[in-house]
Amino acid sequence: MEVHVPTLEQTLKTHVETMQAPERLKEAMLYSLDAGGKRIRPLLLIATAGSYKPVTTAAYQLGATVEMVHTYSLIHDDLPSMDNDDTRRGKPTNHKVFGEALAILAGDALLTESFSLIGNMSEETLPPRDALYLSRRLTEASGATGMVGGQVADLEAENRTVTLEELEWIHRQKTAALLTFAVEAGGVLGEAPREDITRLRHFAEEVGIAFQIKDDLLDVEGSESTIGKPVGSDEHNHKSTYPGLLSVDEAKRKLHTHIERAEHALQSLTVPAPDLFAVLSYMESRDR
Amino acid sequence: MEVHVPTLEQTLKTHVETMQAPERLKEAMLYSLDAGGKRIRPLLLIATAGSYKPVTTAAYQLGATVEMVHTYSLIHDDLPSMDNDDTRRGKPTNHKVFGEALAILAGDALLTESFSLIGNMSEETLPPRDALYLSRRLTEASGATGMVGGQVADLEAENRTVTLEELEWIHRQKTAALLTFAVEAGGVLGEAPREDITRLRHFAEEVGIAFQIKDDLLDVEGSESTIGKPVGSDEHNHKSTYPGLLSVDEAKRKLHTHIERAEHALQSLTVPAPDLFAVLSYMESRDR
Repeated sequence: MEVHVPTLEQTLKTHVETMQAPERLKEAMLYSLDAGGKRIRPLLLIATAGSYKPVTTAAYQLGATVEMVHTYSLIHDDLPSMDNDDTRRGKPTNHKVFGEALAILAGDALLTESFSLIGNMSEETLPPRDALYLSRRLTEASGATGMVGGQVADLEAENRTVTLEELEWIHRQKTAALLTFAVEAGGVLGEAPREDITRLRHFAEEVGIAFQIKDDLLDVEGSESTIGKPVGSDEHNHKSTYPGLLSVDEAKRKLHTHIERAEHALQSLTVPAPDLFAVLSYMESRDR
Repeated sequence: MEVHVPTLEQTLKTHVETMQAPERLKEAMLYSLDAGGKRIRPLLLIATAGSYKPVTTAAYQLGATVEMVHTYSLIHDDLPSMDNDDTRRGKPTNHKVFGEALAILAGDALLTESFSLIGNMSEETLPPRDALYLSRRLTEASGATGMVGGQVADLEAENRTVTLEELEWIHRQKTAALLTFAVEAGGVLGEAPREDITRLRHFAEEVGIAFQIKDDLLDVEGSESTIGKPVGSDEHNHKSTYPGLLSVDEAKRKLHTHIERAEHALQSLTVPAPDLFAVLSYMESRDR
């Protein structure tokens, strides 16, 4: 899958660099887009599309869309009034480098641009009806009914112990919704059969929860140099986590259960999808 | 035109109230949507569409789209790290009531939802190809190449004297771009002939600049009770304004010139458009 990363990153970079916009704003947008994330969402999208059809420019464009939305959410989440994080992936956060005002505006611009990428796809690669459907699904996944709603619930849950159900709801909104969009968008682009789209959504929801459990485990067990932030920062920030609510061992078992369910969903697809299986095993074994 | 305001406001309210999202987030979104603005953008959209075809539900939906984008921009502009305004339209600003984190997220959610309104229009009222075109134009008007870019330039211009050309550029991005989108969207919805779309865009660009000059003049000459913020707040905030760069009299002459050009554009349309003329005369005479 890593073979797709350079083209994806070039797509992101070119899109921002060629915009007719103030240079400082473009710098702030590129700073966070360049910050070397795992690119898990676009890679899932490309792997899904590629399971049905050869990978085209359109897959990178849609991948860039979802990475822009993810990056905007990180910039805003890191702000002093939210999680107040000074570093992310071992680098100073956006507002630490560009100031709060520009960080907010860079996030706003990334969110807005993500819709422009969908709107600018050629009709041959994505029929207008499908493009509109994905634009609608992206708003559901990323707005008040999805990621933004999850962030609100997460902030409201700070400094109190939430139940496992509440924690699961928060992560379904905050993390799984956008991952599910990415996988579904890949399916739509690859013209996957309708029954596969449903299974792909199940797969993505399980991956979303697994991803969060793994993140929580890394925060307890990882090393600062690999995860790019201080170990134990969740506890320090009074965040409820899976190992906190369960135990490290139970959280690991739960992680494994979600990975198994995701595998099961993949096995039921009408195509083999080896790249999606590869993402899964990376998910379980990753150390950052 | 005011006859359309109740239906427009109901459209906004219903859309937010029926979302599956945290209650407190919906409250924050509704607080600013309810804050009793002039609704100039949606009214321009509805007046334009109505000049060509009877006004339908779709006009209110697109009107709600543009009002959501406008409202999100006000919430973010008012934040402490930006203009740091405590009141707007005589009421406490969003972050004063809900706190900074929720204000940022309410803005993010409003921006995202605006695209959902376009995506959810029925195919009979707006063909998918037109909906995608408008979604693309909305990103150009509101993102890094439009409104967000203008806000960045505006922040960079604080505490220094800009030239008239720079000021005009800022307002073309910050104000005129979204107004132009509104008018163009009305034209597309009304299926206006192509030559009219071009004239409508000219009209809207002139209206956008006229609107800003009038705002600047009201800040110097208005009364606090009608404009809803302290008179002279631009000077206090070291903002460059038209009466500041020119003089009150010259700014008034410039306002009149832009209004005349806008009238000229309207006269060249293939339809009479009395409602658009009415908006123009309101623009010149308004006291808030």
